Amino acid sequence: MSNRITSLFNIQYPIIQAGMVWCSGWRLAAAVSSAGGLGIIGAGSMYPEVLREHIRKIKSSTTKPFAVNVPLLYADTEKVMQLLAEEEVKIVFTSAGNPALWTGFLKEKGMTVVHVVSNTKFAVKAESCGVDAVVAEGFEAGGHNGREETTTLCLVPMVVDAVNIPVIAAGGIASGRSMLAAFALGAEGVQVGSAFAVAEESSAHPAFKERIINAVEGDTKLRMKKLVPVRLLKNSFEEAIAMAEAEGANRTTLSALLGHARAKLGMFEGNMEEGELEIGQVSALLKEIKPAAVILEEIWQEFLQEKNRLKQLNF
Amino acid sequence: MSNRITSLFNIQYPIIQAGMVWCSGWRLAAAVSSAGGLGIIGAGSMYPEVLREHIRKIKSSTTKPFAVNVPLLYADTEKVMQLLAEEEVKIVFTSAGNPALWTGFLKEKGMTVVHVVSNTKFAVKAESCGVDAVVAEGFEAGGHNGREETTTLCLVPMVVDAVNIPVIAAGGIASGRSMLAAFALGAEGVQVGSAFAVAEESSAHPAFKERIINAVEGDTKLRMKKLVPVRLLKNSFEEAIAMAEAEGANRTTLSALLGHARAKLGMFEGNMEEGELEIGQVSALLKEIKPAAVILEEIWQEFLQEKNRLKQLNF
Repeated sequence: MSNRITSLFNIQYPIIQAGMVWCSGWRLAAAVSSAGGLGIIGAGSMYPEVLREHIRKIKSSTTKPFAVNVPLLYADTEKVMQLLAEEEVKIVFTSAGNPALWTGFLKEKGMTVVHVVSNTKFAVKAESCGVDAVVAEGFEAGGHNGREETTTLCLVPMVVDAVNIPVIAAGGIASGRSMLAAFALGAEGVQVGSAFAVAEESSAHPAFKERIINAVEGDTKLRMKKLVPVRLLKNSFEEAIAMAEAEGANRTTLSALLGHARAKLGMFEGNMEEGELEIGQVSALLKEIKPAAVILEEIWQEFLQEKNRLKQLNF
Repeated sequence: MSNRITSLFNIQYPIIQAGMVWCSGWRLAAAVSSAGGLGIIGAGSMYPEVLREHIRKIKSSTTKPFAVNVPLLYADTEKVMQLLAEEEVKIVFTSAGNPALWTGFLKEKGMTVVHVVSNTKFAVKAESCGVDAVVAEGFEAGGHNGREETTTLCLVPMVVDAVNIPVIAAGGIASGRSMLAAFALGAEGVQVGSAFAVAEESSAHPAFKERIINAVEGDTKLRMKKLVPVRLLKNSFEEAIAMAEAEGANRTTLSALLGHARAKLGMFEGNMEEGELEIGQVSALLKEIKPAAVILEEIWQEFLQEKNRLKQLNF
């Protein structure tokens, strides 16, 4: 029971929990890692000293491998990278930025490095910078998305053909069926965000989890393409953005509408109308709040079962 | 070697060539049907008497089953439906409209009816209207797209769970890998557009075919969402639309920019700058102009080969 991804991270199942602002602290990451996947602490919503605390807590709660995701968007990235070295973090996922910036530093410290990409060009670049794997993340994903809007179904085979390192598929994956689809496309692992955002151990506000499991088709839209593209759940804030965009709002107007700490307001503090609610399109398929270990196990069992169904197809 | 889709249409492979304006006349449809798939004549770009001629020509060139696709957008739909009955067409795919309008009429005439949907609601509605199968078409598809922007990876499992009739996946499928991914999601057939738009037998202008096989990631965008959403290849016309949309253009402005017969100008007459070039995101994966039979055979062989690869995975 192994492939290049399980070997790279020394994990049981090639299922990786995505780093997600305001959802993926040490509790969620520890639960996923303990259950045999790869848990990730999302550093995007943490001050450096908060991140340090989360790293220490996960280390005291599981001996299994875990990772830290660092979106390369923020001013304190250098401080964060130093901290990862000091705390002897073994696996780092970088995202939303240039893989040339930090891969060398992290590899020098002996870490395993994965970079998240939304196009082939950056996958090739990341490989040439020395990363150990790439996450190919499609249009349907929550969080920060690519401007090309390439879907997981189109993106994964292109990235698989373009690089030699293993590819982890992300965007639209929340079940064994979609995991199997990703493997059919050539991925060797999957990164699952939305399904773990509604895990019991996720630090998302309970009202946000409820909103996610009640989401239906068409409830998320990719917005703020002129600023930083992000997939948002419908609410008053999203409607204000949509209306401004329909009228041709520029970066300045969007920035002003977004203001400060809106993701925290929605995802962590539970303001379902005025907060920014980032989540994947696959939220329309999620129906229940469950422990992370159950989510992981259900994905894995369905993967095996559907793999068996395909095997028995009459072709 | 059979499933519900091959049985429904009495075909060898569960691969269906999409009806596409200005690409799928009788030559392409006959080539696909002769090779063991289901060829479709796209009525969307044909006056009724032109369509009649195409139906007669395909009948004189192959004894294999074929279908006609009727987008329910146009004023002469009633005339077209009467004509399909007169010409004793056996299989009809309806799209871009309400399945309640024509399914009863077509079923009364003894035809097999399939409706194209981009959300679960219309899939359920189509089933209740009596269609024999649905095509679930994702965001990445060319042609007329759903406003929900749900990708094939997210849409197909939802539709499969919502209906009892067989589901044909469309959008982003041009290879055996993506066909296998669709089957992993529960589809029993695939509808392939872009890959057949560049077939030798496609009636697309040679310059359009060249443009498609040279397309790269990000070269198509879903435009005109305020009018009728459609996926367009980048060119002067698309840039004019994009610029107008960035400035908040309304339906009237978009209609005026679109004008009349722009799809014909681009796709059939070969004006690569001023024409409307509708194509799927998967165009970025297409590299060659080939006979339709070769395209079909390559998809099928890769499907079998990848199915075998999955079977041997070390899990």
